Amino acid sequence: MPRIQFHQRLNELKDRLLAQAALAQAAVDCVLDAYSAGDLKLCQHVMDNEQAINSGEQMIDQMAYDLLAMEQPMAVDLRFLMAVIKINSDLERIGDQCVNIAERVRLARNLPRIELPVNIEEMGTLANTMIRTAIQSLLEADAKIAESVLQMDDHVDEMNRRAHEDLTGLMMKDPSSAEQALNAIIICRNLERVGDHATNIAEDVIFWVRGADIRHQMSIAQMN
Amino acid sequence: MPRIQFHQRLNELKDRLLAQAALAQAAVDCVLDAYSAGDLKLCQHVMDNEQAINSGEQMIDQMAYDLLAMEQPMAVDLRFLMAVIKINSDLERIGDQCVNIAERVRLARNLPRIELPVNIEEMGTLANTMIRTAIQSLLEADAKIAESVLQMDDHVDEMNRRAHEDLTGLMMKDPSSAEQALNAIIICRNLERVGDHATNIAEDVIFWVRGADIRHQMSIAQMN
Repeated sequence: MPRIQFHQRLNELKDRLLAQAALAQAAVDCVLDAYSAGDLKLCQHVMDNEQAINSGEQMIDQMAYDLLAMEQPMAVDLRFLMAVIKINSDLERIGDQCVNIAERVRLARNLPRIELPVNIEEMGTLANTMIRTAIQSLLEADAKIAESVLQMDDHVDEMNRRAHEDLTGLMMKDPSSAEQALNAIIICRNLERVGDHATNIAEDVIFWVRGADIRHQMSIAQMN
Repeated sequence: MPRIQFHQRLNELKDRLLAQAALAQAAVDCVLDAYSAGDLKLCQHVMDNEQAINSGEQMIDQMAYDLLAMEQPMAVDLRFLMAVIKINSDLERIGDQCVNIAERVRLARNLPRIELPVNIEEMGTLANTMIRTAIQSLLEADAKIAESVLQMDDHVDEMNRRAHEDLTGLMMKDPSSAEQALNAIIICRNLERVGDHATNIAEDVIFWVRGADIRHQMSIAQMN
């Protein structure tokens, strides 16, 4: 394959990955709306969306595999292909988390709606900003933007910790709210996982751009 | 690099991955013991273990990357390298799940120990069998063994569903047990995630051995 055609196919791969990221973000938006409105049709839409994400994942893996197989990519392209393989898997797992949330919304459909000491919408919006920012860092090959995702992740983790505490407190004080509180706890954990996947993506972008592996930097520092 | 040396390095990579899998299995065993005994020292051991898993993950990624960069691997080797990159990431995430469980055990240390309608040990043992079987399928390049992991996963999912139901029921009946029941619910979800990662590994082995992508087979069948 001529070099120019190879780069054209790399760009096609990037475009497919962007479409995949758009599907993952749409899933988060949609499931947040499903939760707010208790809307089962939106839950079904999240499930349909996940099928599209799943088949997209296979296609992207195949494209990355073909490019690895047909060419001997140069260092920077090779790192890009490795990053794509990992980002692809994280995007699919964001879809899975959204399906988990949709499942919770579906199971909760017959429960009375009560006021809960948690702002799920705010948490979901932040998680979605993390995905968008991580993907932007990929598009612009900008490790600094990617680093900002890592900071947002601390914020989501803290929101999840606080929600867990407040909702457990409510459960013990008012057992009749246990099921609703538990659903909210699980949904918060799922959103926190979405944030983790966005963080993984940002780390993969940093790896690609800088050629350095920054994962687990803390733990390595601690070991020395 | 001569072909024979390339294969020697592929074998070294496989050995490193096996050591990584052993660490992941040890983490599950250890955290189950920590839960049973409420032992904080064992929790600390799980955290230490995770640092070893994290640095192992980086080393394996680097070895896979070097082999991709230096050689133009043949189709079967290329599929193996892609499988290793993914399995490596799943093993690291099993370590993360164990840390989450250890965190729950740590937070629960001051709660009264009560009888709960769940057999966490049984669920954890099954999850560990799934990891071991998935790795065995890799060692023996045996897709049939890998398929048996997929069946075990249905079983773990069902155990998690039942635990969730029973523990929620307990919470509502006896609010004073809410914190313990909630901890158990979250631990079961973590173990169910361990099972999912083992399933991912089995699917990657099947991809490697058969050259076919069997992920999301159901969803594709449903789409047609």
